[in-house]
Amino acid sequence: MDNPILRPALNSVRMTYDLAQKPEYQDLMTAVSPYTEERVNRFTHIHQSASDLVKKVKMQRLLGQQTASCFQRCVGMDAMNAVFSTTYEIDQKYGTSYHQSFLTFLKMVESQDLTVDGAMTDPKGDRSKAPHQQEDPDLFLRVVERRPDGIVVRGTKMHQTGILNSHEVIVMPTISMGPEDKDYAVCFAVPMNTKGIYMIVGRQSCDTRKLEGSELDMGNAEFGGVESVTVFDDVFVPNDRIFLNGETEFAGMVVERFAGYHRQSYGGCKVGVGDVLIGAAALAADYNGCAKASHIKDKLIEMIHLNETLYCCGIACSAEGYPTASGGYIIDLLLANVCKQNVTRFPYEIVRLAEDIAGVLVVTAPSEADFRDSELGPVIEKYLKAAPGVTVENRLRVLRLIENLCLGTAAVGYRTESMHGVGSPQAQRIMIARQGGLEHKKELAKAIAYIKG
Amino acid sequence: MDNPILRPALNSVRMTYDLAQKPEYQDLMTAVSPYTEERVNRFTHIHQSASDLVKKVKMQRLLGQQTASCFQRCVGMDAMNAVFSTTYEIDQKYGTSYHQSFLTFLKMVESQDLTVDGAMTDPKGDRSKAPHQQEDPDLFLRVVERRPDGIVVRGTKMHQTGILNSHEVIVMPTISMGPEDKDYAVCFAVPMNTKGIYMIVGRQSCDTRKLEGSELDMGNAEFGGVESVTVFDDVFVPNDRIFLNGETEFAGMVVERFAGYHRQSYGGCKVGVGDVLIGAAALAADYNGCAKASHIKDKLIEMIHLNETLYCCGIACSAEGYPTASGGYIIDLLLANVCKQNVTRFPYEIVRLAEDIAGVLVVTAPSEADFRDSELGPVIEKYLKAAPGVTVENRLRVLRLIENLCLGTAAVGYRTESMHGVGSPQAQRIMIARQGGLEHKKELAKAIAYIKG
Amino acid sequence: MDNPILRPALNSVRMTYDLAQKPEYQDLMTAVSPYTEERVNRFTHIHQSASDLVKKVKMQRLLGQQTASCFQRCVGMDAMNAVFSTTYEIDQKYGTSYHQSFLTFLKMVESQDLTVDGAMTDPKGDRSKAPHQQEDPDLFLRVVERRPDGIVVRGTKMHQTGILNSHEVIVMPTISMGPEDKDYAVCFAVPMNTKGIYMIVGRQSCDTRKLEGSELDMGNAEFGGVESVTVFDDVFVPNDRIFLNGETEFAGMVVERFAGYHRQSYGGCKVGVGDVLIGAAALAADYNGCAKASHIKDKLIEMIHLNETLYCCGIACSAEGYPTASGGYIIDLLLANVCKQNVTRFPYEIVRLAEDIAGVLVVTAPSEADFRDSELGPVIEKYLKAAPGVTVENRLRVLRLIENLCLGTAAVGYRTESMHGVGSPQAQRIMIARQGGLEHKKELAKAIAYIKG
Amino acid sequence: MDNPILRPALNSVRMTYDLAQKPEYQDLMTAVSPYTEERVNRFTHIHQSASDLVKKVKMQRLLGQQTASCFQRCVGMDAMNAVFSTTYEIDQKYGTSYHQSFLTFLKMVESQDLTVDGAMTDPKGDRSKAPHQQEDPDLFLRVVERRPDGIVVRGTKMHQTGILNSHEVIVMPTISMGPEDKDYAVCFAVPMNTKGIYMIVGRQSCDTRKLEGSELDMGNAEFGGVESVTVFDDVFVPNDRIFLNGETEFAGMVVERFAGYHRQSYGGCKVGVGDVLIGAAALAADYNGCAKASHIKDKLIEMIHLNETLYCCGIACSAEGYPTASGGYIIDLLLANVCKQNVTRFPYEIVRLAEDIAGVLVVTAPSEADFRDSELGPVIEKYLKAAPGVTVENRLRVLRLIENLCLGTAAVGYRTESMHGVGSPQAQRIMIARQGGLEHKKELAKAIAYIKG
Repeated sequence: MDNPILRPALNSVRMTYDLAQKPEYQDLMTAVSPYTEERVNRFTHIHQSASDLVKKVKMQRLLGQQTASCFQRCVGMDAMNAVFSTTYEIDQKYGTSYHQSFLTFLKMVESQDLTVDGAMTDPKGDRSKAPHQQEDPDLFLRVVERRPDGIVVRGTKMHQTGILNSHEVIVMPTISMGPEDKDYAVCFAVPMNTKGIYMIVGRQSCDTRKLEGSELDMGNAEFGGVESVTVFDDVFVPNDRIFLNGETEFAGMVVERFAGYHRQSYGGCKVGVGDVLIGAAALAADYNGCAKASHIKDKLIEMIHLNETLYCCGIACSAEGYPTASGGYIIDLLLANVCKQNVTRFPYEIVRLAEDIAGVLVVTAPSEADFRDSELGPVIEKYLKAAPGVTVENRLRVLRLIENLCLGTAAVGYRTESMHGVGSPQAQRIMIARQGGLEHKKELAKAIAYIKG
Repeated sequence: MDNPILRPALNSVRMTYDLAQKPEYQDLMTAVSPYTEERVNRFTHIHQSASDLVKKVKMQRLLGQQTASCFQRCVGMDAMNAVFSTTYEIDQKYGTSYHQSFLTFLKMVESQDLTVDGAMTDPKGDRSKAPHQQEDPDLFLRVVERRPDGIVVRGTKMHQTGILNSHEVIVMPTISMGPEDKDYAVCFAVPMNTKGIYMIVGRQSCDTRKLEGSELDMGNAEFGGVESVTVFDDVFVPNDRIFLNGETEFAGMVVERFAGYHRQSYGGCKVGVGDVLIGAAALAADYNGCAKASHIKDKLIEMIHLNETLYCCGIACSAEGYPTASGGYIIDLLLANVCKQNVTRFPYEIVRLAEDIAGVLVVTAPSEADFRDSELGPVIEKYLKAAPGVTVENRLRVLRLIENLCLGTAAVGYRTESMHGVGSPQAQRIMIARQGGLEHKKELAKAIAYIKG
Repeated sequence: MDNPILRPALNSVRMTYDLAQKPEYQDLMTAVSPYTEERVNRFTHIHQSASDLVKKVKMQRLLGQQTASCFQRCVGMDAMNAVFSTTYEIDQKYGTSYHQSFLTFLKMVESQDLTVDGAMTDPKGDRSKAPHQQEDPDLFLRVVERRPDGIVVRGTKMHQTGILNSHEVIVMPTISMGPEDKDYAVCFAVPMNTKGIYMIVGRQSCDTRKLEGSELDMGNAEFGGVESVTVFDDVFVPNDRIFLNGETEFAGMVVERFAGYHRQSYGGCKVGVGDVLIGAAALAADYNGCAKASHIKDKLIEMIHLNETLYCCGIACSAEGYPTASGGYIIDLLLANVCKQNVTRFPYEIVRLAEDIAGVLVVTAPSEADFRDSELGPVIEKYLKAAPGVTVENRLRVLRLIENLCLGTAAVGYRTESMHGVGSPQAQRIMIARQGGLEHKKELAKAIAYIKG
Repeated sequence: MDNPILRPALNSVRMTYDLAQKPEYQDLMTAVSPYTEERVNRFTHIHQSASDLVKKVKMQRLLGQQTASCFQRCVGMDAMNAVFSTTYEIDQKYGTSYHQSFLTFLKMVESQDLTVDGAMTDPKGDRSKAPHQQEDPDLFLRVVERRPDGIVVRGTKMHQTGILNSHEVIVMPTISMGPEDKDYAVCFAVPMNTKGIYMIVGRQSCDTRKLEGSELDMGNAEFGGVESVTVFDDVFVPNDRIFLNGETEFAGMVVERFAGYHRQSYGGCKVGVGDVLIGAAALAADYNGCAKASHIKDKLIEMIHLNETLYCCGIACSAEGYPTASGGYIIDLLLANVCKQNVTRFPYEIVRLAEDIAGVLVVTAPSEADFRDSELGPVIEKYLKAAPGVTVENRLRVLRLIENLCLGTAAVGYRTESMHGVGSPQAQRIMIARQGGLEHKKELAKAIAYIKG
């Protein structure tokens, strides 16, 4: 983990532990487990109330503010909450004991404060075909062998941000399934050092800048996130780690619940990252010497307005949460999807406004190497002076941070993953259509317009 | 009140009483007063918790759905809550007894279930001048005489929607004030039949269509709202009805709190009206025979998405509410302003989408008179047939409802008052700037970018 | 034509004659006919160059500025240009003499300076069915009888704005057709006083306000537009007035060309109306006393920016025009569709900004009757004073004009007909997809990315 | 020029020569000089007609399509046209001979087909102060010595994209100036190899990826652009290369004209780059196997619509061009500013849509190194298969191109420089306010509303 490409991702996860130690954040960062009655990290907690759901969002905003990046531990929290309530309902229907197995797993995670990844997205191959219809049967992760003591699975989970730093991974199906997809309806948890699991780290914009030894040029030298393709190459899963195994009609439930929780999450973490970008844009305006221009002030207001609108969505779907049969609380699904849909739009506009305020120097500034150069350095010092009393180095620092968030490594998380994380925009639209109550709205209109029948 | 122009406004207010009688709405429409321990209409209630604030928004959405118009009683509720907590704090500072007077007034309102208007907006004259600097001193409502038993006030409150149907009116100042505006820093309640009060009803788009005898052409024949200029022509206010009288530094507090509550309100009522418009657009698509076109479905999703985003803002600023010194709960001010700011935008886009889906017949359809005409009627019947099984009359009905909401009497409330009610967009932006925590955000950015000092 | 409902529409058309008399507008308003070598009104002219197409747009902007409404004569101009080139190509293929007949008609129109309407939109009934498949065969206008000397047609054309004031009407098909729709593939011109033609005038927002005797309350007392359903109840068309008769494959051509010309038109006329609305908003800001606020100035800039973007589209599709086989010039189809698509969006945003700037008084102001009242008048005078030196009457006048354009009779043309006129937004999107050159763009991307095959 | 960081920029410029050799592009890429009567590269041409201005935009679109990047030679073309007409007018007023000097320079450029850079943006230091008021007098480029044979200048020009590959540079002032800024009102041309000129190359997102030896990972391996700070360290300029020297009132003219021409340019070049991005997104949809989804088709239409709207603005400001006193043609200033203002918005939305269509793999895909790896390669091949018949390599190629344009080196040009190039958005808004004819619009509104005086 001394790899400079990967180190920032680890630092981000570390923050989920560090902040939990601070008394001022105890209420946000921790909770009392109803299963162990111990105080646990909230990232390992099953939500017991709407208030828990709201605190989750506030914790995520806090971490976004402190890392300006993806801190990766939400996926596991959301997976645990989704699997918790789903296993309860499977057991109710089938008399299975998935929920008990999961509870055992959960208690271990809570007591050891483990980082858990949730893995959902399969490669999906030909999008027009169901899992069992694919030419290559492995394009969705599946059970390839059933043994008395467990199962062997094969397949791949794509775009996994936090998996590199996780102790455990919860694997879930990625879509609703029909009876013929039985082997694909599988959910389980295994330690990340299980035999057969390996990762291929993906490239990010500006990734190798981390190898160049310039802390300044990185913009955010400490924190980040890294994605990887995670391959399950005939991995054995013991029985007590299996939470779904062929009950195809529950695949959709775990997907929908996980997606709901994770769409809520974006109303917290992205808002926190947005706070940093807004602050950076405001600083850039100060350092450029144009903070008092009315159009600059107005653009900062717009950034705040958009960011807080996302936060409203995160809070609202939480405050409207309700208990599932298991006792664990779940968010309002309609509002969580509305939340995520806005996340596919507003960060892009916030980025656009940040680039507007920052000025073009954000993409044309000299390197730290030139800035430290004995000949060029003084020239850069001379000509990049702007507002009185501001050092050129600080001006460069804040511009590099903006570059990082708008085009660099953090843009991957703040922009493109805001778009596609836990479902592309169209996925939310389908849920909004389904949950939007259109027939009821038609009845309302009929009543007003005196339309009968 | 048999005046057809005014009748729909009365019907809308009536709904705030009717729904409160229905058992299924008791939890939303009523609350138990902590002052009388009686169950009272929520429109007369002082919010005792964040949950009360959330229920207020849900009640407003319900009423918007049932009336497709402004039901007018929110202004008084919001005024009462603002004056309740402000008088408490004035008394704490000055040893006055405004709060006790207000409590007496409140108990009467609660027990008699009165409709109360809140009146804030003064004519304002020359916008660059403070109240006392205006050429005509009456352009802000003011105390013109002080007597042992009370005060005499003169001035005007503009754009009052519900005042025609109110039993009482609470008059509040409209802006923050300095020491020289002492006579303008006045807040009180009087019955609407007090000597010296009269109203000039404003014109609305399509107002006189209500006089033409065609229920169909009105679109929404039953419900509406009407605005009026309300003149206080040397009106006497007895001492026990005065809640602020010269304590200029509290003018700003009552304005800000009232504005906050009322900006929250728009996250409920306008959402309810939006529900009706979305339902009407969906019906129009059905009746036009194009409900299955993917672009139509997508536009309906977008309308729902925008409408629910407004709702998220209404819920979020409520769920984040907190108690004032008086014990009454207040909304999160930043989020309430964010809520209202979105209300100045999304209803316009929802209207645009409704007009897109409805088709141009919404503005070119023949009159009911022609439709009932023995010669023209059959021709209209023949040529306006669209989707199989849909009567032309129903098609006309839903189009007239859409016309009413997009261009007619209800557009006044759904569009222009969404823009300007309780402060034009710029007023919210000023509050967002003030409440947005920009300095804290700069510190966050500095920490990430390693900027010291 | 003394009907106050209809009179403003006539006045708007009158302007197309009046301005043509003014020397300063001769270059825009007139052209020299290549067929008669006489100077003719440009509304009767067949475009001979890209420069003619550009002048057409400028003439339309001028008329929009002078009338703040639809001046109605464009439809005929666009129909004549579409039929001119299409008849030429039909004759080339079939040896028919439609073009000669049309030329004779055109020369008459030119020499007598007639107002001609173009009628396209059929009722369309069940949208999923072709004309000949409709249950009622008359839901698309069709030939019901063929005689030696001509044809008899039956059907209806919807949403005809200018037809009330037209001398002649050119009837065109409304969609592309297959061989079985032979009787529906018909195009012809007849005088409006032909036996069997009658109109049903549609309702508009605020239409009957014109009957109330208040010039002030109308906002735009002089100009307007009125739509009507036009019924062809077994109308005889002589042979020399027929321009298409069963050549089904040319139905699509005349539709596409007419639509192209008319989508260009919107880049002129709506821009002119927009100019008036921008001017009115700027005046309102002056009269309200807030013209110097930076957010007001910025909103006016945004309105201009959007309006000029529409103009750019109108100019561009014209400047890129090219000759058809007939010699008449046609616009660039892709850009004309892009133009219209923007017209379905920007006027709505311009309206929203106008309502923002105007303030809520635009929808709550007292009536002229109250303003002229001996008792209420002085009260209104006293309290509606705003910027120094501005009369309350002028303030009311400009607000009524804004109301007229945003919600009243003119909103029908400026908003809803901007949306649906000559095809709803989706119709343009289909054309943009077809004309957008996507395959060529893919080749460009392949070349850059070194993708073979 | 074997530096892999700089090579792509040179290749882009090379295209301006290569395409000029192709017969099919002769009309766009070349023109006949009225000064030498030779056929010259259009990049060296003084526009002789509105048609020339239109062809300029089409040439730029073509080059954007062929390079998917900034081809850098427009700045010089626009500088030459601005200086050409301005020097003519200075000479008319002052009897100077700048125009003759410039003509001599121009003929050399034309005959030798030189690449010329135009350098405008100074560091500007404290934005609230004029050049002569800056603490460091060099923060705007200035004359530091006047000799009989010429002048010596000192200062810096920022953000110069094409300067590295230019033979000559034309230096212009960056703002309007008053009499006290005499030493700053200077315009001249010098060869880039003049003593005292040096450059500091700026960093770009993903710049060093070009050093890693992976053609695939670059996305666009062949073309690019690079920015640099260009320092003029006491550079001597001979008299015959000076085009403005202290005539301060003409500084504003050359700035405004250059800005106008260059804001027009963006309506061509960015549209061409947009064509490639649209094509790439369409290919990605094909390769992902979701090209038939209606929401994907709709997003592609939206991208085309936005891109063509920009093109309309580029064409319109050109078609409305008119001659200056010098005979050279200039664009319509209002429309050129409207063009650029749209360029500060639409490319961001096009990028957002491209990321939506592409899917998240665009930011998480494995590196070429892993793809070529003997062990990992087959795994990647297996799991990244999507649409039947599409190779994984081609899928990766098109995603890398999209990454390049949305977040990588080309995003610098397509996004941030679209925002700030030749003036940030606010600069255009100031021009739109100035050119927008608001007073005339008010008169129009007054006439309609019957407002006198």
